[in-house]
Amino acid sequence: MAKKVKIGLFGLGVVGSGLLEIVNRRRELLLQHFGIELEIVRAVVKDPTKRRKLAMAGVEVGTCADDILNDDTIDIIVELMGGTEFAYDVVKSSLLRGIPVVCANKALVAEKGVELMEIARENRVPFFAEASVGGGIPILKTLRESLVANEISSLTAIINGTTNFILTKMNEEGLSYFEALKLASELGFAEADPTLDVEGIDASQKLRILAAHMASGQFPEGEILCEGITHLTSRDFRFAQQQNMTIKLLAIARRYDQGYQLRVHPTLIPSAHPLANVRNEFNAVYLVGDALGALMLEGKGAGSLPTASAVYSDIIDICSKATIDNGHVRIERQPVSILPVEQVECEYYLRFTISDEPGVIGKIASMLGDYGISVVSASAELIPNIEDMGEVHIIVHKTTESSLNGALAAINQLKQIQGEGRIIRIERDI
Amino acid sequence: MAKKVKIGLFGLGVVGSGLLEIVNRRRELLLQHFGIELEIVRAVVKDPTKRRKLAMAGVEVGTCADDILNDDTIDIIVELMGGTEFAYDVVKSSLLRGIPVVCANKALVAEKGVELMEIARENRVPFFAEASVGGGIPILKTLRESLVANEISSLTAIINGTTNFILTKMNEEGLSYFEALKLASELGFAEADPTLDVEGIDASQKLRILAAHMASGQFPEGEILCEGITHLTSRDFRFAQQQNMTIKLLAIARRYDQGYQLRVHPTLIPSAHPLANVRNEFNAVYLVGDALGALMLEGKGAGSLPTASAVYSDIIDICSKATIDNGHVRIERQPVSILPVEQVECEYYLRFTISDEPGVIGKIASMLGDYGISVVSASAELIPNIEDMGEVHIIVHKTTESSLNGALAAINQLKQIQGEGRIIRIERDI
Repeated sequence: MAKKVKIGLFGLGVVGSGLLEIVNRRRELLLQHFGIELEIVRAVVKDPTKRRKLAMAGVEVGTCADDILNDDTIDIIVELMGGTEFAYDVVKSSLLRGIPVVCANKALVAEKGVELMEIARENRVPFFAEASVGGGIPILKTLRESLVANEISSLTAIINGTTNFILTKMNEEGLSYFEALKLASELGFAEADPTLDVEGIDASQKLRILAAHMASGQFPEGEILCEGITHLTSRDFRFAQQQNMTIKLLAIARRYDQGYQLRVHPTLIPSAHPLANVRNEFNAVYLVGDALGALMLEGKGAGSLPTASAVYSDIIDICSKATIDNGHVRIERQPVSILPVEQVECEYYLRFTISDEPGVIGKIASMLGDYGISVVSASAELIPNIEDMGEVHIIVHKTTESSLNGALAAINQLKQIQGEGRIIRIERDI
Repeated sequence: MAKKVKIGLFGLGVVGSGLLEIVNRRRELLLQHFGIELEIVRAVVKDPTKRRKLAMAGVEVGTCADDILNDDTIDIIVELMGGTEFAYDVVKSSLLRGIPVVCANKALVAEKGVELMEIARENRVPFFAEASVGGGIPILKTLRESLVANEISSLTAIINGTTNFILTKMNEEGLSYFEALKLASELGFAEADPTLDVEGIDASQKLRILAAHMASGQFPEGEILCEGITHLTSRDFRFAQQQNMTIKLLAIARRYDQGYQLRVHPTLIPSAHPLANVRNEFNAVYLVGDALGALMLEGKGAGSLPTASAVYSDIIDICSKATIDNGHVRIERQPVSILPVEQVECEYYLRFTISDEPGVIGKIASMLGDYGISVVSASAELIPNIEDMGEVHIIVHKTTESSLNGALAAINQLKQIQGEGRIIRIERDI
């Protein structure tokens, strides 16, 4: 006997069309192997008159959310719209009515996840969002189920394909930031307005979701250190290569007794590290568990079919009542905190543009010393084609963000310093 | 209300002790978050008098399998013994009695998997073996559940830590095979008798299990092409580096309409491929799905806690009735075949030891031509310290294993060829 499962779909964009395609492709196998007939019965879209190149037979398309929310025959609601207002209302009222929700909306889960997970828990109804992070990479399910034996102490991720593509081109082909961004746009890896990507905002939303799964369903609250890639230069990459390192935009979550350290920033990492070899638009999550040791998952973090692949597996998980207590913890939500940004400790690479005068490095080093920061190495080079201008590159031992900011503010006052010094954090032990 | 789950454990070796440690470590969290109390109530071992540094309170240790098999209060049986005879009897009779089994025994699953999966299916009882492949890497569950939207066309894996450690040292430090093997033994990465590892037998057992999950629970039957790493030389690695490639022992499963191509052999792969950067004792599985595209999982493929981490997650999966129809397909077993080895098509790197006479390369190339094989590049070099002996390195275009074997047999007859030519297969598009 086949079990019919009826889906109500919000959104028929890139991911929605991918989902329709997969549902059609896998129809026969799902019936044969699992005894399930999956039917998308209704879709709510903004513009129902838009021509779509989709096999839409049997799908009623409308604009009114209540068409789906009031349809008692619908078993699972899939939210693929994006945005945090209308989507929030839809997901919340579905969960309140006891209808399971699959959601690919990272902004919504990052912003309202605390509340929605709590509603899901209270109503004992599944709320899965695998597709909200890392496209088709099954990272949330892996954290939730496969690593159930592990306390995850550290999670380090490349979770924005646009920036990883740009950084790969800067590293491998010596392109400037703007040249690489232009190439990314031409190849469809960057949006017309790439701000959310290049400023690290997209990555920090995803990091919040990852951290929640690392913390067994508790969303850490507090500020995430978030820094983008727009200030990186090809000279930074050359310097990195001289140190056998490369630069990646990392999303980092570290667990401490007092809370979580969460941060997104360009980072120097050793070239031999697995994350250094994650190239172009690929995403990867590298984590360390107390039983498992290191584990890395790498794959396509975006795109119609990869993302829909994650949505589909969430649907099948719900059909099979896949997880204890529907994937959320039994206990009530307890506060989990994000550690203050000022307490972040790193090694740093510092870059200053200087007027070429003797003794500048010494001055900088002694000012760093005033803040208890000691220098590992320092070098200066002339900037080609600009007379009497140089660049100083300094690596300093581990120190806190607050000491470093203090020192930087002072150094920036030096008359030989042009503009402001820039920092890139270094992680050798990920 | 806590739900008590009682475990009967066969084997208290490396993985068994890891499991005990994890069960103790996670006791409180499992109760708090999932409402489950996991208790290992009985263990069957060869020598119960052996002193074990384990927290064994509450575990009855004996030597008689029936102590566990006849204990009606036991909910799940965990088989960590190894071997294919006694272990087979234990697993089979557990499944026949309707008791779920978690198994870390790759030899058993590879050899008797067809039959045991069938018994499990008929009795509708879970039989999970995540720990049998890739240690703590959750590859079987990922194939079974997370990739349910995908038809997997290709799976390429580094699934033997010993050989990957040896090949990494040969590649990065220029060691000979024997030097690298010695180092692996000293560091505990190779067993006293490394035959099963270095001849590719361990990898081909694991490949059979991976292929079964790729084929949705059907174990492909037939011969696996299996070749070890003992014949590789440091010159092979130097040659590979000149081509921007490296050599890895790969386990390859490719899906064709007629069946599966399964093979284990040293392989030249491009240095930029993610698998080329899987170093030392690490394992990785790289797969391509029709929706997802490429996905790679990388982690520790062996060791007490990593392997026990996989066993533990299988146990929790069973507690939560994690998968539709207990992880096996509904339909009866249908034959899935492994394609004949002779049909394997590859590019090849050929290496011949020759007496240094003019015209040898020409002779070899023309004999390859007789078998329809065309040469991409050919070069010769003298072997240092051996007078008048040289080595010829040839890369040929894609051809079949049977053509190549024919050509090789003929070339080996040439009087200028010393010993036998060796081949290493090349995969550029994994």
